[in-house]
Amino acid sequence: MMKNKKNYYKKKQQPPGTLVYTGDQSDDSQELHLITYNKDKIVHKKIKTIDEFINEENLGIKWLDVIGLANVHSIEEIGQKLKIHRLILEDILNTRQRAKLEDYDDSLFLVIKKLSLLEGIEIDAKQISIIIKENMVITFQEYDEDAFKLIKKRLEEGAHVRALGADDLTYAIVDSIVDGYFDVMEILSEEIDKTENELMDDPKKEILNRIYSLKRQIVFFRNTVWPVRDIANTLSRGEIKLIDQKTSYYFRDVYDHSIQVIELIETYRDTISGMMDIYLSSISSKTNEVMKILTIFSAIFIPLTFLAGVYGMNFIYFPELKWRYGYLGFWIVSILITAAMIKYLKSKKWL
Amino acid sequence: MMKNKKNYYKKKQQPPGTLVYTGDQSDDSQELHLITYNKDKIVHKKIKTIDEFINEENLGIKWLDVIGLANVHSIEEIGQKLKIHRLILEDILNTRQRAKLEDYDDSLFLVIKKLSLLEGIEIDAKQISIIIKENMVITFQEYDEDAFKLIKKRLEEGAHVRALGADDLTYAIVDSIVDGYFDVMEILSEEIDKTENELMDDPKKEILNRIYSLKRQIVFFRNTVWPVRDIANTLSRGEIKLIDQKTSYYFRDVYDHSIQVIELIETYRDTISGMMDIYLSSISSKTNEVMKILTIFSAIFIPLTFLAGVYGMNFIYFPELKWRYGYLGFWIVSILITAAMIKYLKSKKWL
Amino acid sequence: MMKNKKNYYKKKQQPPGTLVYTGDQSDDSQELHLITYNKDKIVHKKIKTIDEFINEENLGIKWLDVIGLANVHSIEEIGQKLKIHRLILEDILNTRQRAKLEDYDDSLFLVIKKLSLLEGIEIDAKQISIIIKENMVITFQEYDEDAFKLIKKRLEEGAHVRALGADDLTYAIVDSIVDGYFDVMEILSEEIDKTENELMDDPKKEILNRIYSLKRQIVFFRNTVWPVRDIANTLSRGEIKLIDQKTSYYFRDVYDHSIQVIELIETYRDTISGMMDIYLSSISSKTNEVMKILTIFSAIFIPLTFLAGVYGMNFIYFPELKWRYGYLGFWIVSILITAAMIKYLKSKKWL
Amino acid sequence: MMKNKKNYYKKKQQPPGTLVYTGDQSDDSQELHLITYNKDKIVHKKIKTIDEFINEENLGIKWLDVIGLANVHSIEEIGQKLKIHRLILEDILNTRQRAKLEDYDDSLFLVIKKLSLLEGIEIDAKQISIIIKENMVITFQEYDEDAFKLIKKRLEEGAHVRALGADDLTYAIVDSIVDGYFDVMEILSEEIDKTENELMDDPKKEILNRIYSLKRQIVFFRNTVWPVRDIANTLSRGEIKLIDQKTSYYFRDVYDHSIQVIELIETYRDTISGMMDIYLSSISSKTNEVMKILTIFSAIFIPLTFLAGVYGMNFIYFPELKWRYGYLGFWIVSILITAAMIKYLKSKKWL
Amino acid sequence: MMKNKKNYYKKKQQPPGTLVYTGDQSDDSQELHLITYNKDKIVHKKIKTIDEFINEENLGIKWLDVIGLANVHSIEEIGQKLKIHRLILEDILNTRQRAKLEDYDDSLFLVIKKLSLLEGIEIDAKQISIIIKENMVITFQEYDEDAFKLIKKRLEEGAHVRALGADDLTYAIVDSIVDGYFDVMEILSEEIDKTENELMDDPKKEILNRIYSLKRQIVFFRNTVWPVRDIANTLSRGEIKLIDQKTSYYFRDVYDHSIQVIELIETYRDTISGMMDIYLSSISSKTNEVMKILTIFSAIFIPLTFLAGVYGMNFIYFPELKWRYGYLGFWIVSILITAAMIKYLKSKKWL
Repeated sequence: MMKNKKNYYKKKQQPPGTLVYTGDQSDDSQELHLITYNKDKIVHKKIKTIDEFINEENLGIKWLDVIGLANVHSIEEIGQKLKIHRLILEDILNTRQRAKLEDYDDSLFLVIKKLSLLEGIEIDAKQISIIIKENMVITFQEYDEDAFKLIKKRLEEGAHVRALGADDLTYAIVDSIVDGYFDVMEILSEEIDKTENELMDDPKKEILNRIYSLKRQIVFFRNTVWPVRDIANTLSRGEIKLIDQKTSYYFRDVYDHSIQVIELIETYRDTISGMMDIYLSSISSKTNEVMKILTIFSAIFIPLTFLAGVYGMNFIYFPELKWRYGYLGFWIVSILITAAMIKYLKSKKWL
Repeated sequence: MMKNKKNYYKKKQQPPGTLVYTGDQSDDSQELHLITYNKDKIVHKKIKTIDEFINEENLGIKWLDVIGLANVHSIEEIGQKLKIHRLILEDILNTRQRAKLEDYDDSLFLVIKKLSLLEGIEIDAKQISIIIKENMVITFQEYDEDAFKLIKKRLEEGAHVRALGADDLTYAIVDSIVDGYFDVMEILSEEIDKTENELMDDPKKEILNRIYSLKRQIVFFRNTVWPVRDIANTLSRGEIKLIDQKTSYYFRDVYDHSIQVIELIETYRDTISGMMDIYLSSISSKTNEVMKILTIFSAIFIPLTFLAGVYGMNFIYFPELKWRYGYLGFWIVSILITAAMIKYLKSKKWL
Repeated sequence: MMKNKKNYYKKKQQPPGTLVYTGDQSDDSQELHLITYNKDKIVHKKIKTIDEFINEENLGIKWLDVIGLANVHSIEEIGQKLKIHRLILEDILNTRQRAKLEDYDDSLFLVIKKLSLLEGIEIDAKQISIIIKENMVITFQEYDEDAFKLIKKRLEEGAHVRALGADDLTYAIVDSIVDGYFDVMEILSEEIDKTENELMDDPKKEILNRIYSLKRQIVFFRNTVWPVRDIANTLSRGEIKLIDQKTSYYFRDVYDHSIQVIELIETYRDTISGMMDIYLSSISSKTNEVMKILTIFSAIFIPLTFLAGVYGMNFIYFPELKWRYGYLGFWIVSILITAAMIKYLKSKKWL
Repeated sequence: MMKNKKNYYKKKQQPPGTLVYTGDQSDDSQELHLITYNKDKIVHKKIKTIDEFINEENLGIKWLDVIGLANVHSIEEIGQKLKIHRLILEDILNTRQRAKLEDYDDSLFLVIKKLSLLEGIEIDAKQISIIIKENMVITFQEYDEDAFKLIKKRLEEGAHVRALGADDLTYAIVDSIVDGYFDVMEILSEEIDKTENELMDDPKKEILNRIYSLKRQIVFFRNTVWPVRDIANTLSRGEIKLIDQKTSYYFRDVYDHSIQVIELIETYRDTISGMMDIYLSSISSKTNEVMKILTIFSAIFIPLTFLAGVYGMNFIYFPELKWRYGYLGFWIVSILITAAMIKYLKSKKWL
Repeated sequence: MMKNKKNYYKKKQQPPGTLVYTGDQSDDSQELHLITYNKDKIVHKKIKTIDEFINEENLGIKWLDVIGLANVHSIEEIGQKLKIHRLILEDILNTRQRAKLEDYDDSLFLVIKKLSLLEGIEIDAKQISIIIKENMVITFQEYDEDAFKLIKKRLEEGAHVRALGADDLTYAIVDSIVDGYFDVMEILSEEIDKTENELMDDPKKEILNRIYSLKRQIVFFRNTVWPVRDIANTLSRGEIKLIDQKTSYYFRDVYDHSIQVIELIETYRDTISGMMDIYLSSISSKTNEVMKILTIFSAIFIPLTFLAGVYGMNFIYFPELKWRYGYLGFWIVSILITAAMIKYLKSKKWL
């Protein structure tokens, strides 16, 4: 039916704790990005091994961005060396997770979905996993266009951005992902509007399929965004150790945005179910119109045909046939009947 | 599809904390209104710079009303000089917010939507932002007809109104906005009634579009009012430092009104979905009626036409044709058949 | 559309605290009833001024029943002399309130709706406001048939009733109002049953309007009763100072009744939406039946008419026409075709 | 419409505290059953007056089973002598109660509905009221088949059953009533299955009424069982003084069963609304089929009839008529047209 | 209607505490599996009597797996010797339970459903009962393919698996069951997709039955999984004595999975109700198309037939009949009429 629910759980029937990658990545390409910065300085380089990351001096905040998850062995090594709970590793590799937030003693684990729209109006969800520790952030994403390009650029350019903590970096990441939801929403909404207009113009059967495909995207969208709302709410309540009270105010903003997206989604669900109603009613309307045409033709010609049939009879004693103006009279009567019919149909507002 | 959901989030993909105006205002006109009053005296003047406001003596309550948000630089300056949190400034400029209430340590930040109805039954929402501090209120609105005209007039006229605190001023503002919801509701309800009557009279296809447009307005209305209910509830519980217990009783009233509006909205949603049902059933009814007419004509004339066809046959041995009263007999039989048919159709209540 | 949602908020855009009467009462008639009683004695008289009430000795419980709200000035005077909060006065005069319970320090304020059914099955709601203080009850109702006639009569007749407190009097009032909901429900349910029976017999278009009108009444009913449930629940929990623990047991009964009413309402909502379905399906059924008749006539006569047409052709070399029993043969063939058709239609269960 | 919602509240407009019987019992027959038992011994006899019960020695647990509620005077006497709160007496006599549990200081009052299915698939609800005191249980039921026959028999037969307390007896009663819900459910489910099968075979109009009647029964069932779930939950939480912790484990079982019933009911509600859809779609399907037959006949014969009409024309210069094989040619053309039509209709999958 | 709701409660009207087996097992076959292990060693054997289990030395964790429930006597003996609460035994034998978790003082009782798909897309639920005690796990399953084959194999093979506690074993069992839900979901989803595609291609009536059957399976699935979510949530909150904090993290995973399943189920419910809509709309579309064909034929041929009828009349004074090119003229007029009709129908987009 559609991509975003196939293979949702490749890992089935493995013993618990087995690391299995369940995503779409076709080869095991991997890049490790090391970024460390403080107000004055930033180091940003691609590294080959996790040991390089461990040995690098922490200028203030240290961020490891792992791009590419298919190399399970490498992920496992990173996990062991950075002391990441095996369950977290499992969740990172199982890219069919719902968004979630887990508070471990010394770290915070966050899974969130980055959405984009593929050709043919299909939502594509990339899983982003974030581990926040004291002065350290570790992110995992599938090997694809770098989801954090913009954030990295801002860090390099702006000193005041670099003055902030690990929680602010987390906020920047989450905020940019949630902002992305609005982009998806916008294209989707344009598609919905377009479909709606076509529906109004000419309700063809193909539109029904389009409506259903849009509905599925909207439902998928909603399922993706829904848990984000709870996560943002939790982060904004200022009760999590690794998130500063000051930063939690910012997450209140993310919370507001997630609610806004959800409200828009609900509005579009309404719109789409309304479109279904319009489609159904338009079929009924068309049937009604077809029937009217048929009835008009029948109502006018059936009596006339009967009349013509009458004067086609072969009775020997048939006075009208011999009248001088019989034929003319037939036409006059026919025209009168037709006129009466048309008047009657007009009184019914069918003509 | 409709204005109130376009451009809902122009700010996308900016670094957090960037101030961007996302509203409809076309130029950067701005007015600053300074009002300060106590029981005995009121000063009300337009000022040019925020410094004038800061230097003005506070007679008791000091109110700054900023009209026009497009000049981002000016808003930023006001924010800096009055020590407004950067996140609040962002929210003020992003006019696509949901209504919300945020309790900061020394101030209360309130966003609420002033609704009005444009031509063609389209709800227009103007964002009003209110910051309440000790003895000070700062409001922000887009450059348009002054939303607080009436309140300012009452302050100038009535001494006993001026005796009250900053929380009472806030109440007056919120109350007037929520009262405005009833005005919108009233016009909307008239339009719904009108549409319903037309639907009953003559269910044309255009009405379907009207119904859907009304439905969208109602949904937009509901989304706007829904968070106001929670805000009023919070303000009425008397747990907020800057809102006096005494004033919180008044917010209980606002809470009641917001529930009343929501109930009316829900009732109208019901009404509108009922209208859709009526529309659909009326199409079915009309098809039914058309079919009846067709069937009546067919039932009467098809047998007669057959009969005429019979006597139009050219068999040589065809006794009836030679009968003296054959033709007369044909008409008698025809009339009898018609009478029988009419009786039959009457027994079915079709005639 | 209907009376019970018109003018729901006449008070719009007045400064807060303005007393405006928003009800239906056409003149400013007003009656003040003073009742004071203890176990042994009861005084019940109409008084002219509120001072008479204040000066009257309190025998145990003192009850002021104000009938008629249109005279705003008089209500204001009563409010001032009996120290009623201005907000309460506003709520008393604004007869478009939802039912509510407000707990002030020294008094309890209760708004509840007395329902009755007008001609044409339209629910009419009269607002009853009750203020309960230590040993004192003040009630307000619009100038109409006295809502408390029965209660007053019982107080006069029964000594043991008079032995009870102000909270018991409140209970008696609320209980009688909630009992009234059952009366309305009963008439409404009879109307629904009647409509349902008519629908089953003959689903005419007028019934659709009746169904919608009933639906609206049911929704209005539900909106009215819903808050009463919460009020009764609060009163029954025994946490309100002015309501004795013993009396709160009785309110548990009111709570049960309100739930019972709501359940009945929900059942009727179901019934009504089921009626809509039946209506729609009956139109489809009728169209189906009409089509069947048409098809039966057509299926039988169209082939016969063709046959008659064939033998009406004027070919010169046309053997059948010259056969001795050609005409007879035509009829035999016709009858055979008809018989075959009837058999076929019977096999389809259309005949 | 149906019995189970008629007369739901005969008691209307009586002063609070008035004892009025609102049930179906036609005469005032009454039986008092006295049962008292301990591990070793059981006394079970019918008694005439409540005094006999009071004077009887309590062997361990004393159970008074009152059968017949129409004799209000007798119930009142029982209430007075056994110190039952007047509100409880009211609730016992008002047999239109929802199931409920009320915790008084020294007693527990429980109302629950015993369900059975009458002829014609109509659920009949008998109200059972239970008062539990220290070592004493008092039950009230309408005069009908004894609802506790089985429980009494088990008490007489089994010593180990008699070793248990008043709370266990309550459990036994409630458990047997909830078990009865499964019996009702089973018959109802068979009826639903039967109706569904008939619907699949031949969707007649009478089935629609059956579906609606079943729907009503299911709704009534649900309303009855719903509060039982809350009651069982409360009893199972072990927070009620008169219910032992050990017994509360058993009520957890009752709670599970009530949830199971509710789940089944919800499943059947789904099934029934699905049946409605099937009914509607089957009417549409039938109309569609009727239309097809009509169109097939018309498509084949209308062109042929036209052709026959052509050769029935009386033009003098009409070459075909004089051809030697004109008539034969007509038939060949007719057959060709018919064959083409049939092929066309087959390509549309109508034949 | 379907297997999974028949006989749901065979136990009706037995005295509480009676052990009755309510499952599907046809004979009373039973196997007892004894497994005891620690890091270094594992003993796994079939035993004959429960005494063998009791006498076996506990190497670390001791697991009794009872396969086959029909031999009630044997289950009762196991219960007595292992001190299992009678209520638990009842629940084990009553295989129509909802999934549930009960926390007794010294043990934890867990009921969960293992799902599999039978032929013809019917979900089959096998009840698994688990009792967890300090260092001991007792499981009960019906006599069928061993539900724990895989887990036993892993225990035999992997030493590190054997190092874990009784709670980890419980986790392994629950996890494998919940994983099984995804297998069922996958087959079900394939069936739904297949049905959807067939529906799009050719909406036959049989598909309607398939859709309903799928809907029922989905509802049954949902009812089964729903309580599992609550159970996993409880187990993951780390508040249960017998579940280690460390293990509770793993149950968080099970909780996530159960939510994921429920979300998929809800999505499929949506899909299925959408399929119903598509089915209904496709019937309407087909009727519409049939009507169009009929109307096209009628619109073209009815006027022509009338015309032919006219020239079949036998008037003596009938000029056209004698014209040299009358017949030719008739055909020209006929072709012109047909052309005009076709143009008209094309303007309506019917051709």
